[in-house]
Amino acid sequence: MGNIFGKRFTLQDFGESHGKAIGGIIDGCPPNVAIDFDFIQSELSRRAPSNASHSTQRKESDKVEFLSGIYQNKTIGTPIGFIIRNEDIKIDAQQSTIIKPSHASYVYKEKYACKDNYAAGRASARLTACRVVAGAIAKLLLRPLHLEFETVVLETGTPTQSGDTVGAKVGCTIRNLPAGLGEPLHDKFDARLAAAMLSLNAAKGFEIGDGYAASKMSGLEYNDRQDKNFNFLSNHDGGVQAGITNGNELYFTVAFKPIPSLQIPQETIDFKGNSIIYKANNRNDYSVVPRVIPVIEATAAMVIADFILLHHNLYQYYAKQPIGKKCK
Amino acid sequence: MGNIFGKRFTLQDFGESHGKAIGGIIDGCPPNVAIDFDFIQSELSRRAPSNASHSTQRKESDKVEFLSGIYQNKTIGTPIGFIIRNEDIKIDAQQSTIIKPSHASYVYKEKYACKDNYAAGRASARLTACRVVAGAIAKLLLRPLHLEFETVVLETGTPTQSGDTVGAKVGCTIRNLPAGLGEPLHDKFDARLAAAMLSLNAAKGFEIGDGYAASKMSGLEYNDRQDKNFNFLSNHDGGVQAGITNGNELYFTVAFKPIPSLQIPQETIDFKGNSIIYKANNRNDYSVVPRVIPVIEATAAMVIADFILLHHNLYQYYAKQPIGKKCK
Amino acid sequence: MGNIFGKRFTLQDFGESHGKAIGGIIDGCPPNVAIDFDFIQSELSRRAPSNASHSTQRKESDKVEFLSGIYQNKTIGTPIGFIIRNEDIKIDAQQSTIIKPSHASYVYKEKYACKDNYAAGRASARLTACRVVAGAIAKLLLRPLHLEFETVVLETGTPTQSGDTVGAKVGCTIRNLPAGLGEPLHDKFDARLAAAMLSLNAAKGFEIGDGYAASKMSGLEYNDRQDKNFNFLSNHDGGVQAGITNGNELYFTVAFKPIPSLQIPQETIDFKGNSIIYKANNRNDYSVVPRVIPVIEATAAMVIADFILLHHNLYQYYAKQPIGKKCK
Amino acid sequence: MGNIFGKRFTLQDFGESHGKAIGGIIDGCPPNVAIDFDFIQSELSRRAPSNASHSTQRKESDKVEFLSGIYQNKTIGTPIGFIIRNEDIKIDAQQSTIIKPSHASYVYKEKYACKDNYAAGRASARLTACRVVAGAIAKLLLRPLHLEFETVVLETGTPTQSGDTVGAKVGCTIRNLPAGLGEPLHDKFDARLAAAMLSLNAAKGFEIGDGYAASKMSGLEYNDRQDKNFNFLSNHDGGVQAGITNGNELYFTVAFKPIPSLQIPQETIDFKGNSIIYKANNRNDYSVVPRVIPVIEATAAMVIADFILLHHNLYQYYAKQPIGKKCK
Repeated sequence: MGNIFGKRFTLQDFGESHGKAIGGIIDGCPPNVAIDFDFIQSELSRRAPSNASHSTQRKESDKVEFLSGIYQNKTIGTPIGFIIRNEDIKIDAQQSTIIKPSHASYVYKEKYACKDNYAAGRASARLTACRVVAGAIAKLLLRPLHLEFETVVLETGTPTQSGDTVGAKVGCTIRNLPAGLGEPLHDKFDARLAAAMLSLNAAKGFEIGDGYAASKMSGLEYNDRQDKNFNFLSNHDGGVQAGITNGNELYFTVAFKPIPSLQIPQETIDFKGNSIIYKANNRNDYSVVPRVIPVIEATAAMVIADFILLHHNLYQYYAKQPIGKKCK
Repeated sequence: MGNIFGKRFTLQDFGESHGKAIGGIIDGCPPNVAIDFDFIQSELSRRAPSNASHSTQRKESDKVEFLSGIYQNKTIGTPIGFIIRNEDIKIDAQQSTIIKPSHASYVYKEKYACKDNYAAGRASARLTACRVVAGAIAKLLLRPLHLEFETVVLETGTPTQSGDTVGAKVGCTIRNLPAGLGEPLHDKFDARLAAAMLSLNAAKGFEIGDGYAASKMSGLEYNDRQDKNFNFLSNHDGGVQAGITNGNELYFTVAFKPIPSLQIPQETIDFKGNSIIYKANNRNDYSVVPRVIPVIEATAAMVIADFILLHHNLYQYYAKQPIGKKCK
Repeated sequence: MGNIFGKRFTLQDFGESHGKAIGGIIDGCPPNVAIDFDFIQSELSRRAPSNASHSTQRKESDKVEFLSGIYQNKTIGTPIGFIIRNEDIKIDAQQSTIIKPSHASYVYKEKYACKDNYAAGRASARLTACRVVAGAIAKLLLRPLHLEFETVVLETGTPTQSGDTVGAKVGCTIRNLPAGLGEPLHDKFDARLAAAMLSLNAAKGFEIGDGYAASKMSGLEYNDRQDKNFNFLSNHDGGVQAGITNGNELYFTVAFKPIPSLQIPQETIDFKGNSIIYKANNRNDYSVVPRVIPVIEATAAMVIADFILLHHNLYQYYAKQPIGKKCK
Repeated sequence: MGNIFGKRFTLQDFGESHGKAIGGIIDGCPPNVAIDFDFIQSELSRRAPSNASHSTQRKESDKVEFLSGIYQNKTIGTPIGFIIRNEDIKIDAQQSTIIKPSHASYVYKEKYACKDNYAAGRASARLTACRVVAGAIAKLLLRPLHLEFETVVLETGTPTQSGDTVGAKVGCTIRNLPAGLGEPLHDKFDARLAAAMLSLNAAKGFEIGDGYAASKMSGLEYNDRQDKNFNFLSNHDGGVQAGITNGNELYFTVAFKPIPSLQIPQETIDFKGNSIIYKANNRNDYSVVPRVIPVIEATAAMVIADFILLHHNLYQYYAKQPIGKKCK
């Protein structure tokens, strides 16, 4: 359970980092959306491991194969199935016995009670590739809105020594988002966005607009007023009031903890409770930056597509004809 | 849409602050849960308007009437319907013409295109009473876990002058939460908790564990290690790893913006775009504190109940018999 | 769980036949739908117990009270909460000890393991009043489509002696239904309609179009061909092909078993397994006819509204403005 | 939308009959379920096209490739992704211009407004292979219940001449099904089963127990009474009362219309409204029998698994440890 993203524009994905392949099914996309495969692959490349010192040495070509839902470069309204083969697989022998500090290994074992914790491969950041594919299709679907994404690293930690890892704070601005998105009371736009961001690997915090700074402010300094043309004179709310977009720029931040796998020996235990020294291999990033940036944008695009389709302007834009009109 | 909370232990609520009544339906609660009506009413009283200077002058007895799902002080497995009548209703004549800065009035009009924005009464904090009722029942359901809630105000703003309002940062600790709650990849425990908290009135930020502080840390200082008895030696993760509870204390914070309704004249516009001076009446709080504290706990209890019932230990604890065993 | 009907136009109801009240929440209804309260009450009256010899002697005024979501006789886009008080309540002392043949009493006890089977009051046909309320609002919402409903009793059983009950087969035709409703592969229009009808008390069968007669036919005699104006020359398919409405008349039938409560002594057992003679009181109907007819129509209207709103023609018809257009 | 089956044990599938591949994701399956790949393939073979005269000449090996969720022949609790490549593909040039009588071609064009109706390939019976895979895994999951399936053809039509097709009525009995499955009021066991069966290609009717025969019966002849050991003395209800299984044998029937594609010339029109004579190629079956039998069983097994997991006996049977117990 819990492997599906969204309610109307949905991604259900599958796969473990050491399995045969990862992939997913994108559903709810209207027919007649032009699909630019180069754009999708370029979004994947933004996320792909690089040779930069901060990045995993694992090499993956991340080539996506689409299996359905697209015909002659256009969506046809049916589910879009895709897979990305895993290539550079090394099963870590220690994997199944060690409790890696602040890592998925312990909780997956607690949850699934499997003989080994191979299942924890499901928690790998590699799976974000599926979100990037779905987010790229969401961006193609949303082109009529002319959205602009701007994502920047606001803060990062300082590694204490070689092999250490760092956290980061990332801010994202999205322009041209229409007002009226978000469903009271329990499916608010910013609530859904928060859940989507917190579901990213290593995410530990979310703010919309001024966020935690707002907790120290007074109403007089905070309130966003509008001029006679309904334009906002400030944006403390970050584009969302009462859980509904207000037409102002969307602005949110996400906090990420340091990646738990250190190339430094750490004291820990195995699943029998024996003390052990653990040092990760060199197949892990030392920071979520910069690979997380396209993932944040893809995730936000999926949330936006999900709410937009509830009001179906875009569905009808693409499907062209109202229900019941005869085909000619 | 979007008026339902949860997936297995669910609350669907209804009502506007100026309508006849608010209320809801709690579904998914197992049979045979002992219902302590005094406890439920006491939780409601913690949330109710007080005479404290910070609180609305609106007077509501907040008496809940249960209509179904409970027989002889025990749940019977059917939906629990309840209503709370609105009593002290004053329809604000200005309500339907003014755009109140950073308030629901504008976005509800954008969204629903109603002649007046009476619908924005849906966004009133009064509706949190429904969550408190459902949260109280969640707490009763969860008694076998002996959860402990501790919620404190960590920060608040300084009003610049009389009639101004302030924001606040609140921290919540929950003890005795079992490990294994949370569903990868898109229904993680902390993601659902974040959405639940962001859906509260005036909420603008959420942190699990160290949250934003983690973005400045290194892995060596952050990682939570376990001793030979599997006990954690620290809790930077706030009790959640990879979206799954790890059995450590759950710790999260929520940031709230200042309440937008000021008893100070503000320049704003009406829905025709005319300049206007707006001053709220004295029926609004000047801070979410302390009324939000029981609401945060109720909301967290509902999220916990929702995940616990997925694994059904409690359902079977209450339903007693496995499927197929004959009744005697 | 399982107390919610629909996905976009939804009813969640609550109540047991012997509780304080029954009621529900209708969600997903667009704003600005004109609500005709006399029409809603007249639909309820079609379903209400009459003095006819076939009908229960239980007397209920079935007055619905709306608590939210409607302002000045129009919907405002927020959830519509309503209650119907139970008035003429008699708790049957035998209720909690007897296993009534082919009645809900046994399975509710198996399922909920409650001390008594008061919960089985949830299974009472009285609850169909909630569907009639929601169905009436669905019909009001759907007025722009000018749907025509025609529901007739096709067959009924013959009581073997006084106090016996009978089954019935009912056929329903709905005209002016647009083509294109229904979602492949697992949410087909006729699949959802079948589930909606099978969830009615005493329903045991469903047919779309020729139904069981089709199983004896050949393709040459069955296939529905279209003329040059795309009009159908026959309607063996009953208006649905491949799970999607085709614009032809919708035609379906529902089979109902005899009501299980006989005013004739029946040999049965109690929950301890002791033999006992059981004779129902005079508070039960002896046939689902004619009270089920408005319930079938209400249920069909809800299914239609649910699918129509997926394509949102009606939502935009009522909400008037596209997302993002400024309010004036 | 509508491409997902079930709520807890779920299948989301993808693919068109003439695309690269079909496949799906099975989610909600507990960890530690032993997977017998030979059994899965044998279930697929029961459904596969044969050389029998009634069967399509299309040749497909229907080899399923599992990509995730299984490790060392056991499930690990993560989603099970699989694909089946399409091999013997012939794109029918007429496909995109002709309205085939009683076939998906017309309604898909009405619904999706695509330039051609390639999307209608989604409606092919080939997609039932995905259900057979998921149903086989459901059967493996359900082994502790020792269910017995017996499915028989009860009726079939008579082809009027060579190239004609026939309908069929199929009956299914399932033994050892526990009591207590099914959720009042809107997610009843038989309602969900009806929807699942009506979503099969060419299905036009569903009965539980006596079904339509019950509409002609009286209560005295119909009611199922129980003996002192709670065993039923008859089974008119087909194992379901008030939407909840009663522990008696489950018995239901499904009616199928004749397959619409005839190898006989039929008068029809193209999408421009021109008269045309259409004759299907020899790549279509002339009856759903016998290939539909494993599909019905697979579909029923999925519905049962979905309800069983709501009460989680099986989840805990496989996951072994209660939430919170430490791993050792």
